[in-house]
Amino acid sequence: MARDKYDLFYWPGIQGRGEFVRLALEDAGADYRDVARLSKAEGGGMEAMFALMKAPGLAPFAPPFLRHGKLVVAQTANILQYVAPRVGLVPAAERARVHAHQLQLTIADFAAEVHDVHHPIASSLYYEDQKIEAHRKARHFREERIPKYLGYFERLLAGNAGKGRVGHALGKFSYVDLSLFQVMAGLGYMFPRTMQRTRRKYAHLYALAGKVELRPRIAAYLASPRRLPFNEQGLFRHYPELDAQ
Amino acid sequence: MARDKYDLFYWPGIQGRGEFVRLALEDAGADYRDVARLSKAEGGGMEAMFALMKAPGLAPFAPPFLRHGKLVVAQTANILQYVAPRVGLVPAAERARVHAHQLQLTIADFAAEVHDVHHPIASSLYYEDQKIEAHRKARHFREERIPKYLGYFERLLAGNAGKGRVGHALGKFSYVDLSLFQVMAGLGYMFPRTMQRTRRKYAHLYALAGKVELRPRIAAYLASPRRLPFNEQGLFRHYPELDAQ
Repeated sequence: MARDKYDLFYWPGIQGRGEFVRLALEDAGADYRDVARLSKAEGGGMEAMFALMKAPGLAPFAPPFLRHGKLVVAQTANILQYVAPRVGLVPAAERARVHAHQLQLTIADFAAEVHDVHHPIASSLYYEDQKIEAHRKARHFREERIPKYLGYFERLLAGNAGKGRVGHALGKFSYVDLSLFQVMAGLGYMFPRTMQRTRRKYAHLYALAGKVELRPRIAAYLASPRRLPFNEQGLFRHYPELDAQ
Repeated sequence: MARDKYDLFYWPGIQGRGEFVRLALEDAGADYRDVARLSKAEGGGMEAMFALMKAPGLAPFAPPFLRHGKLVVAQTANILQYVAPRVGLVPAAERARVHAHQLQLTIADFAAEVHDVHHPIASSLYYEDQKIEAHRKARHFREERIPKYLGYFERLLAGNAGKGRVGHALGKFSYVDLSLFQVMAGLGYMFPRTMQRTRRKYAHLYALAGKVELRPRIAAYLASPRRLPFNEQGLFRHYPELDAQ
C-alpha cells in the first residue's frame, strides 16, 4: 500500500510555528513536501501557498497548513492532532488524544507569548519600533511566564518519569514531546543567559529534549539542510538586550 | 437514558474564555453545573476548581476546564471540540469537525489578542500600569487586527450565505456560530465607537450574531442571571480611552 502523501505549506525562511509540524512529519518518516520551499517548476514556491489562502470556502487564516488528499487543515495544533494518529505519534484512545491536544494548545499559547515578547505592540511594526516595550515585556516573560509554563511541563514530566527513566508528556512518546524539544531549543537560542541557569530547575525537560534529539530521524533531520537555522525573522529570536544580564 | 452530566470550571465573576463553553452548553440544553459559581455546600466554589488544578497527572494549565465522567478536558477550543459532537453542535463528519476546530482556534487566537490589548506588557500588572502601551497597541488592534479577523470571518459567512439567508461558519449551524456571536457582543462592549461604524462592513457577522441571539435557549440564557455582565475583569473590557475617538 502506498504511503499517504502530505503537503505542508509554511513560510520558507523560518522555523516558526511550522517547525512543530515539520518535526512530527520528520520523526514519523512521513512522505511530505515542504511546498513553499520547492521551486516553481516543482509546483512549489510562495505562489502555491498564497493560491490556497485565496481559495474560496475554508481557506486558512494563516500558515502553517497541511494538505492531505482534498482536505486542507490549518492551525498548528489542529494539524498535529489530525496527522498524529495517522503516522503513529499519539495513542489511539480518545483520552490520550484529548490530553495530547490540550498540552499542544498550551504550547501554542506559550508560542504566542514568545512572539509577543519581540512584538508587544503590533505584528505590523518592526522590532526596532517597539524595542522599549519589548524590553519591559521580556523581563516579565523571563521571570514569570517561562517559570509558569516550563514549571507546569516539568511537573508533568516528573510525574511520568520512572526511576532513571525519562518522563514523557503522555507517559509514552508522542508528538507533544517533539514540540517540547522545540520549545527548549527555541528558548535556548532566544535567551541563552536565562536558560543556562535553569539546567537543574527543568531537569526533566532537558532530559526529554536530549532524548528527542537522539531519535534517529530527528538527529538526521537536525543535521540536514531541511532544518532551517533559528533567525530573527522567526518565532524564537535572539536579541541579547532582551535576555537576562 | 439519563443525559450526560457536565461540570464546567471557570472563574465565577467573568464571562472570559469560559463564556464560549457556557454558550455551547446552554444552546444544547446540556445538563451542566458551573461549579465555581455554586456554594461550598453544593460541592462548588473556587476551592473545588483549585483542587482539580492541583491534582496529580494531567491537571489543567488554566481554566476553563470541563469534567465529563472521569475525564477532565482543558483549553476552550478543545472543550468545544470534545463536547460539540456529543450535544449535536457540529456535524459528525471528520472534515466538518476539523474545519470547525480550525475556525475555533482562529477565534482563540483573536481572543488572546483581545486580552493583550489591555495587557500588552504582562498579565501580572494592572491595566493602569501598562496604559501607555495599551493605548499604542489598541490603535493597531482596532485598525489592523479587527479588520483582519472579522474580514476573514465575514468572507467565510458571505460565501456560505444563500439569497436572503444568513450564512453560518460551516454552512450549517454549529458551535462556531455561537462563538462568533460572543466575539461580536464582546467587541461591541469593548469598542462601541469603533464597532458602531462597521454595521455594513460586517453585515453577515451582524446578521449571524442577531440570529444566534434569537435562538430560544440563547435568548433565555442571555435574559437569565446565568449570563454574567461584561466587566473590566474579563476578556472584553471597556476602557473608553482605548476606543476610537
